[in-house]
Amino acid sequence: MYTHEYLKKFTSDLFQKMGCSPGDADAISDVFLRAELRGLPSHGMIRIKDHYELWKAHRINTTPDIRIVHESPGTAVVDADGAIGMLSARRSMEIAISKARKTGTAWVATRNSNHLGIGAYYSMLALDYDMIGITMTNANPLVAPANSVSRLLGTNPITVAIPAGKEPPFVADFSTTPIARGKLAVAAKKGEEVPLGYVQDKEGNPSSDPDILTKGGAMLPLGSDLEHGSHKGYALAAIVDILSGVLSGANFGPFIPPNLAFMPMPEIQVGKGMGHLFGAIRIDGFMPSGEFKKRMDQWITTFRNAKPIKGKKVLIPGDIEREAEVRIRREGISILPGIQKELKEVAEQLGVDFEVKDE
Amino acid sequence: MYTHEYLKKFTSDLFQKMGCSPGDADAISDVFLRAELRGLPSHGMIRIKDHYELWKAHRINTTPDIRIVHESPGTAVVDADGAIGMLSARRSMEIAISKARKTGTAWVATRNSNHLGIGAYYSMLALDYDMIGITMTNANPLVAPANSVSRLLGTNPITVAIPAGKEPPFVADFSTTPIARGKLAVAAKKGEEVPLGYVQDKEGNPSSDPDILTKGGAMLPLGSDLEHGSHKGYALAAIVDILSGVLSGANFGPFIPPNLAFMPMPEIQVGKGMGHLFGAIRIDGFMPSGEFKKRMDQWITTFRNAKPIKGKKVLIPGDIEREAEVRIRREGISILPGIQKELKEVAEQLGVDFEVKDE
Repeated sequence: MYTHEYLKKFTSDLFQKMGCSPGDADAISDVFLRAELRGLPSHGMIRIKDHYELWKAHRINTTPDIRIVHESPGTAVVDADGAIGMLSARRSMEIAISKARKTGTAWVATRNSNHLGIGAYYSMLALDYDMIGITMTNANPLVAPANSVSRLLGTNPITVAIPAGKEPPFVADFSTTPIARGKLAVAAKKGEEVPLGYVQDKEGNPSSDPDILTKGGAMLPLGSDLEHGSHKGYALAAIVDILSGVLSGANFGPFIPPNLAFMPMPEIQVGKGMGHLFGAIRIDGFMPSGEFKKRMDQWITTFRNAKPIKGKKVLIPGDIEREAEVRIRREGISILPGIQKELKEVAEQLGVDFEVKDE
Repeated sequence: MYTHEYLKKFTSDLFQKMGCSPGDADAISDVFLRAELRGLPSHGMIRIKDHYELWKAHRINTTPDIRIVHESPGTAVVDADGAIGMLSARRSMEIAISKARKTGTAWVATRNSNHLGIGAYYSMLALDYDMIGITMTNANPLVAPANSVSRLLGTNPITVAIPAGKEPPFVADFSTTPIARGKLAVAAKKGEEVPLGYVQDKEGNPSSDPDILTKGGAMLPLGSDLEHGSHKGYALAAIVDILSGVLSGANFGPFIPPNLAFMPMPEIQVGKGMGHLFGAIRIDGFMPSGEFKKRMDQWITTFRNAKPIKGKKVLIPGDIEREAEVRIRREGISILPGIQKELKEVAEQLGVDFEVKDE
């Protein structure tokens, strides 16, 4: 087990060695560690090595000039200058919040960026200002539109954070696919099949092979098949791609540069880097914050008290991650031996100490 | 077959007889007919009788004072004063567009409203101003949250209209459930079972009974089951409910008044009427409109040219409805004999002519 503080300083040190300022490195490190704390290790320390490799391949910029290139009172396009996604996302949401303070609501579309980690991190920044925060991002194309075999969309997540009063905030964070890609990798490593409805083969037939993406297959949109509304999951992923990619001037669809250094850049670029969209909505643009929070508490209580299916529990979006955070802050962060080894290697390359532990 | 013009005038005449001004009646009629033209008769003439019954029961107000009750430069709450939903929705989107012209983007939350018909109608109003339009609404509670047997959410649709250049606009319009409720009614009338994944019984077991809603069952959120991401469909429907209902001061969740006169009003009210949310986003708040439209054409072309599954066709959201509109404008609107009979009855009650036809 590692303490949160140890890994946070370690991660910040690594990014400083890659050229980030101490402030930027701390900001980036905070997002990685928040993923670990919220019980989402797929977006935590496991991704450090990818970032190191991308940096070595000159595919991320650790001294970016992140700036607004087009704006109106309530909108902006931010060019992230190839920054690490966690930094461009944070700055962009800060701009959205700052604009929404004046206009009541704002949207910031960000281009020339990279993978931003957990979207909930940025949406939750709005909560401190009594605002609703919205984050969406396009991602590596792995998902086929309904009726297609072409991989044109990412898992394109949406996160929405909504403040409450006595209750904890509502924090929804979900990909627009039935499962995250990581679940396929886990099943493949275990040699297990996955349920039908996650992936299709290269001809578009239903498949239970978790390794099908390496064989020309594709992930399916939320809904899984047309009979169960996969055209709706496709529409939702498409909206995220258009608002993140087309509107910002980033790449979109199949043109999105992969965030893994061993995957080559696409031959055609239709914009700059990856794209994200950040929204901020002032609660008191609609009613006094106190009144809204009471209503939100009533909403949460109503849903928490819904009658559960026998043996199950009705959850409010954000419950699982919040409970994980309480537990992991207390118990510490467990890192798999293979990931510890990778971190040790990166640490040695960059001249930073890292203590390997028996887990 | 009826001409669009005949039914439009007929519908306007009916609403004028119910007390609407000619302008309001025309605006309302336009939404009903647009549903018929876009091939969505479930939201067209079939709903006229419900509105008449609601009016007779004094549950809709045909001379409403629709007004802004709270606002900031880019936000507003509109109190619809119990108006017919088509009227409150149109006015609210017009306010969102007007605010977005100044601030770049705006959100309008509407309370004290009723069923608004097809959401795409309002989202598409934004297209003429080179804006993206967003519409969402809460609805009669029929859907259970993941892990629950309680019916707390509506089919809560989301529609997003995005302008393009040479290509037709992107118009996504989807409920946050695998199917619309109408599909259950059709299967029940035919005595057919429905596929698993649409509904559950009163204990939360999978069910194929299309009539299960009358037996304490519930509709399932998009994703159908937890293994296939129904917690994501639940989160999405919850976001729509909160932004439409909690933020506007309307009712939310199980407290939403039913839009059918024979269903009693809920005993507890936590706000006023039904709620909607309307968003408008100026394209040129991000980049020149011409540049965006070229990029959007490229997005549409890329997806239209995706490789189809053998024998299938890859569609862009909005294709089906647009093609239906071309065909139905030419061929005319077909009304089922049972619906013609209902319309004739309402027409006679209100002293309006209606010609019954052999279909």
